[in-house]
Amino acid sequence: MCGSCDASAPSSNAVNGQGAANGQNGHPKTTTKVSNPYAAVHDSLSNIGRYKLIESTLREGEQFASAWFDTETKIKIAKALDEFGVDYIELTSPAASEQSRLDCIAISKLGLKAKILTHVRCHMDDAKLAVETGVDGLDLVIGTSSLLQEHSHGKDMTYIVKSALEVIDFVKSKGLEVRFSSEDSFRSDLVDLLSLYQAVDRAGVDRVGIADTVGCATPRQVYDLVRTLRSVVSCDIETHFHNDTGCAVANAYCALEAGATHVDVSVLGIGERNGITPLGGLLARMTVAAPEYTKGKYKLHMIKEIEDMVADAVGVNTPFNNPITGFCAFTHKAGIHAKAILNNPKTYEILDPADFGMTRYVHFATRLTGWNSIKSRVEQLGLTMTDEQTKEVTAKIKELADIRPIAIDDADSIIRTFHMGLQDQHQVAAATSSAPAVEADVPTTEAVVSQ
Amino acid sequence: MCGSCDASAPSSNAVNGQGAANGQNGHPKTTTKVSNPYAAVHDSLSNIGRYKLIESTLREGEQFASAWFDTETKIKIAKALDEFGVDYIELTSPAASEQSRLDCIAISKLGLKAKILTHVRCHMDDAKLAVETGVDGLDLVIGTSSLLQEHSHGKDMTYIVKSALEVIDFVKSKGLEVRFSSEDSFRSDLVDLLSLYQAVDRAGVDRVGIADTVGCATPRQVYDLVRTLRSVVSCDIETHFHNDTGCAVANAYCALEAGATHVDVSVLGIGERNGITPLGGLLARMTVAAPEYTKGKYKLHMIKEIEDMVADAVGVNTPFNNPITGFCAFTHKAGIHAKAILNNPKTYEILDPADFGMTRYVHFATRLTGWNSIKSRVEQLGLTMTDEQTKEVTAKIKELADIRPIAIDDADSIIRTFHMGLQDQHQVAAATSSAPAVEADVPTTEAVVSQ
Repeated sequence: MCGSCDASAPSSNAVNGQGAANGQNGHPKTTTKVSNPYAAVHDSLSNIGRYKLIESTLREGEQFASAWFDTETKIKIAKALDEFGVDYIELTSPAASEQSRLDCIAISKLGLKAKILTHVRCHMDDAKLAVETGVDGLDLVIGTSSLLQEHSHGKDMTYIVKSALEVIDFVKSKGLEVRFSSEDSFRSDLVDLLSLYQAVDRAGVDRVGIADTVGCATPRQVYDLVRTLRSVVSCDIETHFHNDTGCAVANAYCALEAGATHVDVSVLGIGERNGITPLGGLLARMTVAAPEYTKGKYKLHMIKEIEDMVADAVGVNTPFNNPITGFCAFTHKAGIHAKAILNNPKTYEILDPADFGMTRYVHFATRLTGWNSIKSRVEQLGLTMTDEQTKEVTAKIKELADIRPIAIDDADSIIRTFHMGLQDQHQVAAATSSAPAVEADVPTTEAVVSQ
Repeated sequence: MCGSCDASAPSSNAVNGQGAANGQNGHPKTTTKVSNPYAAVHDSLSNIGRYKLIESTLREGEQFASAWFDTETKIKIAKALDEFGVDYIELTSPAASEQSRLDCIAISKLGLKAKILTHVRCHMDDAKLAVETGVDGLDLVIGTSSLLQEHSHGKDMTYIVKSALEVIDFVKSKGLEVRFSSEDSFRSDLVDLLSLYQAVDRAGVDRVGIADTVGCATPRQVYDLVRTLRSVVSCDIETHFHNDTGCAVANAYCALEAGATHVDVSVLGIGERNGITPLGGLLARMTVAAPEYTKGKYKLHMIKEIEDMVADAVGVNTPFNNPITGFCAFTHKAGIHAKAILNNPKTYEILDPADFGMTRYVHFATRLTGWNSIKSRVEQLGLTMTDEQTKEVTAKIKELADIRPIAIDDADSIIRTFHMGLQDQHQVAAATSSAPAVEADVPTTEAVVSQ
């Protein structure tokens, strides 16, 4: 069942349940009945249950419009990410500026568990500068689309392959990890791309990288390209997705299903334009897909603290609709939702807020309120009412909520007054009209009740 | 090529280029060479080039934590969405509250081009109330997952089918459109689900709906379920995706690829918890996938105005990383990006900001600046320098940007002073040190230059 599957070991990797059912409308053949035929099934190439994170807040994130990190901030972010459990931390090229070079040296010296990488153009000058900084590895990159060949570096594929092999040899001779990535891979010629990757794989790179630099890729394209690439190279496969068309989390997920091993992320997704796959968003997805691996490996309760740190450093607010940490991520409002949530949170929650140190809220002071939420609130207030009485007071709350936004105090006042009326054997109608007309703002998280 | 494909006619629908290559590593067989083998190919079941939008800001959006719309605001939003070009506008059930019922009546009377729907529980009481409001159609919904059967309405599948058919018959007898949707479809038993959909299709519903109510679905699961469903029913297929794990745009896209006809969206994605597929995010995706259809049908330049209107009504800010309208969606910063963008915007932009009434920015006052951006700025300032001189002044700008965040004024001062020094035949070094030490905030859009 979605959300309860785990694929944490090589022998139990997950990919979606209908196999290669593109257009075939096929059902998976299972020997035992499962409650949901769309549950994960095994696929030996999938890495859903053993993915690794390359955290690029200090490289891609530094390309975000309002990012400017001093050395102290970089070190603070690197240490937090290391404690969180990311596998790699990627830094801006030492060729970008003198301070960028000094920061590579400083962070490499911290002795973090995470390996330190720097992302440099596939050029001998940049590589020479980078290997001297003490980083554990170099992420080499060059544009391979015809657009970038023409308008960026002006080199053709023959030149690209030749210089790639020279730089790779050099980095390997220094005993460092090396990744080779194309840029704008999804607008590159497939044959060119595969030839290039095959050549660098034979030259012994640790990883090849594919990058959706402009954010144009779609999930099934990603799946197909990565699975094709998986059959061409034997090294690891890193993936990098921009979010211009809102698919960066989904594309990363499909890449892992297809056999990619590493995903580039940044805190809140900050990067060029509207950024890349966000750390928190991807972990929401992976906590559902591979809960044991994800919860075992990453300190998920640190997500909010790390997001707040980076948001503060670059001067943005956490988006209201951010997965996990957005202010409303675990708020339930409609009557029908609230009723079921009160019975069993799994009815409307695929993520458990407690896994992330967050709290659930059920919103009851609205026109959409159902009487089950009010019943729960009545009990929280330590009052006793019959179901019929609860339905009556719910109608009164909805009446007021139809006229203006109401706060938790308004609803509580109505409940208490109604209850007092019941006890005093007075007319209930009289009790309602005496509800205090507290001026309420638009309900926010203050206007809901923690469950 | 990604971004240049259009699939606006039934004969040219798009689906990704490697066909049913799940695990088969296959290449598409094409008779003519294309620059990108991942370009869209035809698939008669795909609706990428003819999708329809059911805009649910006034239903799902009203379930957002801080949403409270008075009648005037609802009418303003409905009119704006109608002008924008959405096909349907969905409203809160008239059974939710008396004002909700009156609002259904008021909006139905506006005479909008968009059809007006209301979303109601699959129950005769609610349906009777709804058909009297003057709406064009009813969106019926019932939970079908075992969790919801147990913890929400407490009904089994036999009861669900029986009551669905009764309510559908009643709505049809009133001459209204009718959609029947399951809730939590991705955690429902597949056989139950298909039997139910087949029964309601035979009963003559206009659309069946599948809903990822908890946000657990993944793109390839969605594709497989929709394609399976496509072979079972002959009516239209509506889809509804929550965004808890960040896949709501991608899932909607894959649903259309598989043959879904309608997508539920809301402005900024507002809805229960962190919401559903956002209107703007989906249109970013669809502008790339089906540019002619999308640009021809929807007034894309209204997106920002509509988002601002709704953000204001519910008291949130547009997320900094929002597709299209986030403040940095079209800002380019790294030297290598800026250089190519200045040569040809398509190198790093899959969306043209002009299509949405937005503007491109190239950020040049940073430590990541390359000399090509500075060259462009020098020209904008009406100055003349050789490439060598431009490289020299670039180094000076990067030197300051390494020490602190700098604003556009700082960079311009350095350029002007350097240029003055060249003209006066003075020492360039002296000019730099006289650059005014303007106190600059962290660079924002003010610190970049419109191209």
